[in-house]
Amino acid sequence: MSRGAATREAIIEEALSQAVAIGLEGISVGVLAANLNLSKSGLFAHFKSKEALQLAVLEAAIDRFQAHVVAPAVKLRGAAALAKLFSGYLDWIKAGAGAGGCLFVTAAQEFDDRPGPVRDRLVESQRQWRALLNQVVGDASTAGAFRKDADPDLATFEFIGLALAYQHAMKLLEDRRARTHAERGFERLLLNLRAGS
Amino acid sequence: MSRGAATREAIIEEALSQAVAIGLEGISVGVLAANLNLSKSGLFAHFKSKEALQLAVLEAAIDRFQAHVVAPAVKLRGAAALAKLFSGYLDWIKAGAGAGGCLFVTAAQEFDDRPGPVRDRLVESQRQWRALLNQVVGDASTAGAFRKDADPDLATFEFIGLALAYQHAMKLLEDRRARTHAERGFERLLLNLRAGS
Repeated sequence: MSRGAATREAIIEEALSQAVAIGLEGISVGVLAANLNLSKSGLFAHFKSKEALQLAVLEAAIDRFQAHVVAPAVKLRGAAALAKLFSGYLDWIKAGAGAGGCLFVTAAQEFDDRPGPVRDRLVESQRQWRALLNQVVGDASTAGAFRKDADPDLATFEFIGLALAYQHAMKLLEDRRARTHAERGFERLLLNLRAGS
Repeated sequence: MSRGAATREAIIEEALSQAVAIGLEGISVGVLAANLNLSKSGLFAHFKSKEALQLAVLEAAIDRFQAHVVAPAVKLRGAAALAKLFSGYLDWIKAGAGAGGCLFVTAAQEFDDRPGPVRDRLVESQRQWRALLNQVVGDASTAGAFRKDADPDLATFEFIGLALAYQHAMKLLEDRRARTHAERGFERLLLNLRAGS
């Protein structure tokens, strides 16, 4: 890796830590430059604007999500794949680079009413995540592991809801039963996908 | 109402609109003063600090939630009460003073890792809201409308999850089926509370 590429990586890494803790809008170029021992102009040599930096951070988070949550699950099928995606997603939310949170959830709050390239990329990534969940449920239904009339869209919606409730209960309410509730909710979701209801 | 009290009300009203759109941290005393034709010092005569103003705004939102979502439901019992709380909560999220969002959800993101009186009041209000949902489920279970071994904590967790997924799908993804999915998820939740599963 060239020195320029290494610096760029270091900036993204540091900015990602900031963003997980305080959001993409919370990224401070001044704090970043100080922490990395760079001048602000040195930093802007790598990213022409704060928006370009936010996009690079979002892209890095998407890559990591793919590696940590999606990749270990897509080798599996049916309920096992969905369960792996669910536990991986909860782990991802819990870890959140130590801060305990999901960058995408925080960014959704920040950018849901702020049009532009960051919002567009965030929406695209969230749609892809849903499309993947959808496909796992649909495939399992076709293969006979879930019932034929299982609704993949609804299952995806419920899956996401349990994960959002987990983040909310864990971070805001510091509820120690958050994980247990999320897991039991997921078991019930699986039960509904399997049984006629 | 005295002139002072009326001014105070007007400040809270305007600040609440700001907060729904951009969060409690997004409240700008400068913008508020300009919109209300007050000097900043005139505004600070009513609220000694931005934090005091944030607390007053949060309190006003809690009062409204009580009036719009809780009050119409607590006359009812069992599934009817829970259904009224759910539809009221979705309406509340949708309305969000025109901006389409729930102040409490946004504030949860802002304050989940920011200790202080605003976070404390927010957590207290969210715990009360959960306790109410819990009690409605528990009462229905005792009365035989829900099964005896229904888990009120889990039902509350799932209820909140569906509402959070609704806000996420509606605001970020602009998914027109968000409401339908939330309602169908709730029907399934009711089915689980009624049937043995």
